[in-house]
Amino acid sequence: MKIAIVGANGYSGVELIRLLSQHPHIEIEMLVSHSTSGTAINAIYPHLTGICELELEKAGAEEIAERAELVFFATPAGVSQGLAPQLLDKGITCIDLSGDFRLRQPKAYEQWYKRPFVARETDLEKGVYGLSEINRDAIKSAQLIANPGCYPTATLLGVLPAVQMGLIDLHSIIIDGKSGVSGAGRSAKQGNMYSEINESVKAYKLGAHQHIPEIEQGIEVIAGSETHVTFSTHLMPMTRGIMCTIYAGLKEARSTQQIIEDYKEFYQSDSFVRVRNEGIWPATKEVSGSNYCDIGIFADERVPRLTIVSVIDNLVKGAAGQAIQNMNIICGWDETTGLAQTPIYP
Amino acid sequence: MKIAIVGANGYSGVELIRLLSQHPHIEIEMLVSHSTSGTAINAIYPHLTGICELELEKAGAEEIAERAELVFFATPAGVSQGLAPQLLDKGITCIDLSGDFRLRQPKAYEQWYKRPFVARETDLEKGVYGLSEINRDAIKSAQLIANPGCYPTATLLGVLPAVQMGLIDLHSIIIDGKSGVSGAGRSAKQGNMYSEINESVKAYKLGAHQHIPEIEQGIEVIAGSETHVTFSTHLMPMTRGIMCTIYAGLKEARSTQQIIEDYKEFYQSDSFVRVRNEGIWPATKEVSGSNYCDIGIFADERVPRLTIVSVIDNLVKGAAGQAIQNMNIICGWDETTGLAQTPIYP
Amino acid sequence: MKIAIVGANGYSGVELIRLLSQHPHIEIEMLVSHSTSGTAINAIYPHLTGICELELEKAGAEEIAERAELVFFATPAGVSQGLAPQLLDKGITCIDLSGDFRLRQPKAYEQWYKRPFVARETDLEKGVYGLSEINRDAIKSAQLIANPGCYPTATLLGVLPAVQMGLIDLHSIIIDGKSGVSGAGRSAKQGNMYSEINESVKAYKLGAHQHIPEIEQGIEVIAGSETHVTFSTHLMPMTRGIMCTIYAGLKEARSTQQIIEDYKEFYQSDSFVRVRNEGIWPATKEVSGSNYCDIGIFADERVPRLTIVSVIDNLVKGAAGQAIQNMNIICGWDETTGLAQTPIYP
Amino acid sequence: MKIAIVGANGYSGVELIRLLSQHPHIEIEMLVSHSTSGTAINAIYPHLTGICELELEKAGAEEIAERAELVFFATPAGVSQGLAPQLLDKGITCIDLSGDFRLRQPKAYEQWYKRPFVARETDLEKGVYGLSEINRDAIKSAQLIANPGCYPTATLLGVLPAVQMGLIDLHSIIIDGKSGVSGAGRSAKQGNMYSEINESVKAYKLGAHQHIPEIEQGIEVIAGSETHVTFSTHLMPMTRGIMCTIYAGLKEARSTQQIIEDYKEFYQSDSFVRVRNEGIWPATKEVSGSNYCDIGIFADERVPRLTIVSVIDNLVKGAAGQAIQNMNIICGWDETTGLAQTPIYP
Repeated sequence: MKIAIVGANGYSGVELIRLLSQHPHIEIEMLVSHSTSGTAINAIYPHLTGICELELEKAGAEEIAERAELVFFATPAGVSQGLAPQLLDKGITCIDLSGDFRLRQPKAYEQWYKRPFVARETDLEKGVYGLSEINRDAIKSAQLIANPGCYPTATLLGVLPAVQMGLIDLHSIIIDGKSGVSGAGRSAKQGNMYSEINESVKAYKLGAHQHIPEIEQGIEVIAGSETHVTFSTHLMPMTRGIMCTIYAGLKEARSTQQIIEDYKEFYQSDSFVRVRNEGIWPATKEVSGSNYCDIGIFADERVPRLTIVSVIDNLVKGAAGQAIQNMNIICGWDETTGLAQTPIYP
Repeated sequence: MKIAIVGANGYSGVELIRLLSQHPHIEIEMLVSHSTSGTAINAIYPHLTGICELELEKAGAEEIAERAELVFFATPAGVSQGLAPQLLDKGITCIDLSGDFRLRQPKAYEQWYKRPFVARETDLEKGVYGLSEINRDAIKSAQLIANPGCYPTATLLGVLPAVQMGLIDLHSIIIDGKSGVSGAGRSAKQGNMYSEINESVKAYKLGAHQHIPEIEQGIEVIAGSETHVTFSTHLMPMTRGIMCTIYAGLKEARSTQQIIEDYKEFYQSDSFVRVRNEGIWPATKEVSGSNYCDIGIFADERVPRLTIVSVIDNLVKGAAGQAIQNMNIICGWDETTGLAQTPIYP
Repeated sequence: MKIAIVGANGYSGVELIRLLSQHPHIEIEMLVSHSTSGTAINAIYPHLTGICELELEKAGAEEIAERAELVFFATPAGVSQGLAPQLLDKGITCIDLSGDFRLRQPKAYEQWYKRPFVARETDLEKGVYGLSEINRDAIKSAQLIANPGCYPTATLLGVLPAVQMGLIDLHSIIIDGKSGVSGAGRSAKQGNMYSEINESVKAYKLGAHQHIPEIEQGIEVIAGSETHVTFSTHLMPMTRGIMCTIYAGLKEARSTQQIIEDYKEFYQSDSFVRVRNEGIWPATKEVSGSNYCDIGIFADERVPRLTIVSVIDNLVKGAAGQAIQNMNIICGWDETTGLAQTPIYP
Repeated sequence: MKIAIVGANGYSGVELIRLLSQHPHIEIEMLVSHSTSGTAINAIYPHLTGICELELEKAGAEEIAERAELVFFATPAGVSQGLAPQLLDKGITCIDLSGDFRLRQPKAYEQWYKRPFVARETDLEKGVYGLSEINRDAIKSAQLIANPGCYPTATLLGVLPAVQMGLIDLHSIIIDGKSGVSGAGRSAKQGNMYSEINESVKAYKLGAHQHIPEIEQGIEVIAGSETHVTFSTHLMPMTRGIMCTIYAGLKEARSTQQIIEDYKEFYQSDSFVRVRNEGIWPATKEVSGSNYCDIGIFADERVPRLTIVSVIDNLVKGAAGQAIQNMNIICGWDETTGLAQTPIYP
């Protein structure tokens, strides 16, 4: 199948190239980028030499639709709202790694992303939230996937089993997010320079991160009622990886062991979620370069309160990997096709 | 004044040497270490060449008491409980950086440190918990200082103003601790090897960290009632620095700005605590190498819930720096003597 | 084909598992380790959960030979000299990632490795030095591969074209080696603790590294005459990656462009060596996780002197990847089978 | 003494503030920066809160000369050539951390810095190259100091003793430079983003670095004859620190021990240069945050060739620290005044 990547010169874009270059059913037909068109991708990223040497192209909906059957958007906010609707009208499947179609309410988008919502409401209705393990059935028949954000993926895979099983008090959810720097993308910003980040942990955007409404919406869909979470984000001195440490009051005391068993059952048929045994805590390095989400559980029976530790590689399960997983589901391929990478350790 | 450092060959020990080498009233008379006695400290740590080249010595209480007026213990758990009582009996002032005299209940020590409490209860009663900003008056006349742990220092300086002002629900306190690796000391452990730590964030010891009872005790002293906190610890890919992100339910909604003003007033005469203005979040690098504790505040009025971000250098304010600050208080010197280091940035 | 890995619990061992888990013709039959036998590999390395959960076994030559056709040794110096000869006698193919069979002279082994040579000279004669691109023909029919060291791989792939083309003065070769820490293995050593390595570059073992005779031997085989190189090694604050910056006097001035063309021709049929264009310098990250060796060239016509910059991932092309490449050559499979990983970037 | 810092908002500028805030004879009177004037320095660098909260100012030569007796330039290339001459005419002492007055030949400046030389030749003649240990006498009476670059400081302190003693062949000098990222300054560049630098060593600017003519000039002044060095630069995944590994042919074989003794004698009255004993190699962390230059020596008698390993903190001895050292020399203060910081380790 021929695919196109729009925004191919960013980190999520090259991660799509990395993973798709090992996918047996896919041919990368075109790399679209307006800012770097005319340049070969391996002139920007020498590590792709011999692997993918396509030239980046400027191209509109028409040309893309002629050459590709499926399009990945690895673009900043605002781009896919403009381009995806035209592609949808031409029957092309779109998998959007940006936040443009994730929030069900255009107003929420405008409030948190601080930009106008410019697509049609009918486009928004077509969009399926691509949290693969949770929405698999809806994804199968979707033409537009709103691929989840990195923090929401780690958070929702961590907390939704407890929500669905009714274990926790919805008003008590706190998420302490810890992210590597690659999540901020490749454009040069002073705050992401090596000398600023190294040997430092920095809190940022407390109470203001655009992933807050996405997390709340994800919980509300399962819970059936409104929730307000406290979500704090911290920049870690590392390139890849997200850990979300999630705290929530238990409605009644349960042992760590019981909850681990519940989680293992919840995810028993999911290849990419691994629930740890008691006392074995996950580290981001243990999923690095792979599509896994590893989850550790601790129930403090004294309070009682549940602590869930969830880790992913932000560029894989938190972006390009989950996008490919969703493509596999749509296309009826085995969900793990092209995603069998073992984590790089150490 | 002549001082001795017991356990001089660990990281807290050499940090004491670094800071004391610039202290105008102090002469380092002896470095005590049983495991490396007979070696010059700069043969182990070449960076001390030309600065401190004393030989490490094996020495008992008698010799130490003859040569030094004040003794710092930078030792693992168990050492000062054996040696400090003998020194106290000889009139020597002891500042203990280990956890041996921090917990008021010997049983709690035995439960969390998993070793017998071997000092006399009368020694324990002499001990003053050396959280300088909070216990200044008691410290002035102390002969034995139980210097606080690194996590408790960051946590208590962050949360105690809110506790004392009665702003928060004591049963809702959650601390998400993030620490650099130097806190684990210098002895070779597989889990602290570079290749294991780098490019990774790892949760550890959830619900089992020996700093839990120290934090609870510190809160209870101010609050006057019992509390159970949830305390999670995470290893960061960095050498120095601790950040504690503290969450607690607000009894009633208050604005971020109000609480910042309250905190600034609380710490108005404390040189080493800096409360940030609204929206300016601390990073551990901004206190690196210095005795500062920087605090950021966010009140989520939707819930309402308070988030406090507190950062220190674990080896300075979390260990050697606060120990020297306590010595200054005891000796009647200006509290900042020898501690005027500007943070190393970048 | 069924294979065994002896020393499976070290970093080279798990890297073999990572790469072989994607190899279409291989089944990992057994993981041998005396120190950790009885434990599942994923209890030591949780990242392998769901990928490889074999139990580590104690096993002698007889059992290994019954169950596996080919054996990888990912062991410290001394192990394969004892075990490999027994396996060779039983007709098993051995690929040895350690230094045990690399040096043609037992005396050189004893001098540089500071341990007795205990195998038979006839075993040593069977051994083929497994620098795949250079020794491909001999490797095809080998029963024992002495897989090259990490520094020698980067150095020899960088310098041998110039040696073979007679461009450089053999007495002028200087290699400035820069290595990530994973090359030192997983056993706990104080010098490789995170706090010692991070934010630091450290020179070590100048003039004493056991890879010196291996490099000299590799050059001498091609040059046909003796050489003494200066080889300096430096520990970098990173986990993976080796860069060797190689300096050598040019017999006569040549342009950078000419030499680049010569190198491209030399490696024209080698999938894993990528020679950079003029002015584009390699970085270790650009080969991370992959079997590539990237080479940059600069000819300083003023002197005239040649500078060659050669980078590899020390655990892949410098260990497990090249070992698998050699297995592919021996087995008559395409040389890149199971080794098509795109470098992980960023 | 009142001083001004021009370019106070860059990394060398804030390092001057850090060090000068502990200097007993200095008052920072003004911070000059055109791009950020009107902002308090601690609004840009929160770590300076409570230490230095001056507002950055736009100011011309007249105002600076009225308020300050000595001016530090921590500016990019081109600035001090315009401003320093006006200050010199008004009798102000200028210490220039940029490269503007380092090269004796305006043509060399224009060739390597790729910009016109705009100062008067008479200004250039006033400039004294501020390599403190080597040029102390000339510095004493200088009105304009051309403070050395970071790589040249590490290189020249490492190699000049051997040059002066006539030990090495001038045509054989090779310098392998390894630098932390802070040397590239604080302005946002894609190549210096955390995600690009971390877990990577990258070669850059081979044969094209503007420090090449500065190093050659520094050697030629001592040697009395022309030299061409090969100088390679490599970006390290660390913030601070430079290591230069220097290779040179020995005119005749000498033992490592002999040369170490020669070096110790050469630097016997220099507080900031520490020559290591045989077999003890320096690491950049061992000088971090301090004004030290640590030197290790290895003579390979087989070739014979000399290897010198020289490390500094690029922002201290390689910039702000040496600038203050030069100020101390000019003012007749003890050379170590305000520079007694112990390296931060770990």
